[in-house]
Amino acid sequence: MKTEKDKVDAIKNGEKHFLHHLSIDCVLFGYHEHQLKVLLLQWKHSGKWSLPGGFIKLDETLEESAKRILKERTGLDDIFLQQFQSFGDPKRSHRSKQDIETLAIVSGSLIDETHWILKRTVSIGYYAVTEYSKVTPRPDPLSEICEWWDIDELPQLVFDHNIIVTEALKALRLQIYHQPIGYNLLPEKFTLPEIHALYETILGKELDRRNFAKKLISLGIIKKLDEMRSIGAHRSPFLYKFDKRKYDKALKEGIALAF
Amino acid sequence: MKTEKDKVDAIKNGEKHFLHHLSIDCVLFGYHEHQLKVLLLQWKHSGKWSLPGGFIKLDETLEESAKRILKERTGLDDIFLQQFQSFGDPKRSHRSKQDIETLAIVSGSLIDETHWILKRTVSIGYYAVTEYSKVTPRPDPLSEICEWWDIDELPQLVFDHNIIVTEALKALRLQIYHQPIGYNLLPEKFTLPEIHALYETILGKELDRRNFAKKLISLGIIKKLDEMRSIGAHRSPFLYKFDKRKYDKALKEGIALAF
Repeated sequence: MKTEKDKVDAIKNGEKHFLHHLSIDCVLFGYHEHQLKVLLLQWKHSGKWSLPGGFIKLDETLEESAKRILKERTGLDDIFLQQFQSFGDPKRSHRSKQDIETLAIVSGSLIDETHWILKRTVSIGYYAVTEYSKVTPRPDPLSEICEWWDIDELPQLVFDHNIIVTEALKALRLQIYHQPIGYNLLPEKFTLPEIHALYETILGKELDRRNFAKKLISLGIIKKLDEMRSIGAHRSPFLYKFDKRKYDKALKEGIALAF
Repeated sequence: MKTEKDKVDAIKNGEKHFLHHLSIDCVLFGYHEHQLKVLLLQWKHSGKWSLPGGFIKLDETLEESAKRILKERTGLDDIFLQQFQSFGDPKRSHRSKQDIETLAIVSGSLIDETHWILKRTVSIGYYAVTEYSKVTPRPDPLSEICEWWDIDELPQLVFDHNIIVTEALKALRLQIYHQPIGYNLLPEKFTLPEIHALYETILGKELDRRNFAKKLISLGIIKKLDEMRSIGAHRSPFLYKFDKRKYDKALKEGIALAF
């Protein structure tokens, strides 16, 4: 959906191109240093905040659809999205009379209360993590603003989107115990404090520094290099890098990291 | 769907009562001693095997729907189902011309190729584990047989149901690392070899006996009783039971069990 014309077309003819009763919502977590953020869109006209979401085309797989929706709505590409849960409370996408009136006005009367997008919708949730200082999201024609919000300071979101974020964070935190996370979130060579901060930030709790490093090294996922980074008079921590082969193996087979 | 009449009604009028493009499939794992099984239905007329599945009513939550479908199709009640993944390949529920002809004959021409149940369907997967020697499944009017199959000897299933079973098993195995499993699968008082066998069977691999027991005891999830079970001349292993309070806490908060 690149232009205003595409938007009108999607509202007018979407009935024929999209699966009814289904949508996809994307929770994009942004990591940078000690901060964890979530990418949100502010809807035009109503001023409401939501996750980037959309509908599934008749011939798309769910993964293709999630990727396309994230790209269309935020401009972000090449982000690996992971399905985590479907949300199907019959009341989850309820719109008030006022919402429907706003939609009618905004859409130039294209949307009334019998419109297909107002049917009960089950939403399939996808999440991803990215280094947010490296990407530049931009709003689509439906949105006024597309920006990162602190995970602890999210506004009231539309529908059940606050619940979707909470469940996505749970899923990410579970995943971190089984699959190494960090390959795209850290520089190629990093210090132990850097990877330690990443895991602490995602898990939202303190992790014993020594045990943490010992675990990752004993599993062979990261290895110590013969290089140091000079960061001050008496501080030059060793650098580490991921052991790509073991990292990929652990990603594929899963591991149990008990921190 | 209790009778033949209900079946005809669902096919004839389901269009108005169910969400189109969506279904639910249930993977019910059965555990007994060292065996892990899956509950399958054999369709009447075509002889094909499938998971117990069905459609979502307009006013049901997904959980209510999964519970109702499992009950209607297998007679089993009070089984806690866990959502794990949605399956949405556009070709997943493809039916051959022959399948559609069979459906037309079987349904007394109620189903032709334009029928709503033949639309592209995204299926939401649910799984559960139960002690299979304690329940008696029975087939519904759509099925000839409802029975347990060895996890390693499953027949070719319809659609992508073999993939759904594989993914459900992965999800169950991940869950076992975070949440204690066993409360409903073991007697109230059990021996270490019994709980060890349960975990080995579900994980499909050998687990070091000593470390396994040490871990569960140190987490406080199980506790040793002052009782033994006499199983032979020189064999009387101690009995253990779950520490309900710690078990519930671990279930709620999640733990990382690294076996």
